Amino acid sequence: MHVIVFYDIEVKRVQKVHKLMKRYLNWVQNSVFEGELTEGKFEEMKSELKKRLKLEFDSVIIYKLGDMKYTAREIIGIEKNDMDNLL
Amino acid sequence: MHVIVFYDIEVKRVQKVHKLMKRYLNWVQNSVFEGELTEGKFEEMKSELKKRLKLEFDSVIIYKLGDMKYTAREIIGIEKNDMDNLL
Repeated sequence: MHVIVFYDIEVKRVQKVHKLMKRYLNWVQNSVFEGELTEGKFEEMKSELKKRLKLEFDSVIIYKLGDMKYTAREIIGIEKNDMDNLL
Repeated sequence: MHVIVFYDIEVKRVQKVHKLMKRYLNWVQNSVFEGELTEGKFEEMKSELKKRLKLEFDSVIIYKLGDMKYTAREIIGIEKNDMDNLL
């Protein structure tokens, strides 16, 4: 399935979560990731995420697009994933 | 079409952009909006956005899902749009 994930979490947990997400998906922008996952990997990712979040403070939203991809992705302004190679 | 928009912009422009986006879409989370738009409204929104952004610093990503909606949306952690009723 194709998924888009974005998180809104406290700064002190950002790096840990970012690192985890990169194991499963592609980085799109600051706190946005997307990519293809099997159902098994998807469940694994969620379980790993939950270990790293403080659920009373943090928020992660996941859009599951099933097998369909979106029609288009447009970016207004700068592309923020230039750092990808550095991490 | 169904669109999901998220922005990563400088704090001083957040309120202005948030206010604009609420004219077109529903607020999901901090910097995430989604909803249904006609092609005309979509173009209008983009044009209004561009007026309010500094394109060399800000970044807005738009996913167009066409007429299909996503299969599911899941939230891990807290729902951050409790304020929705207040705005």
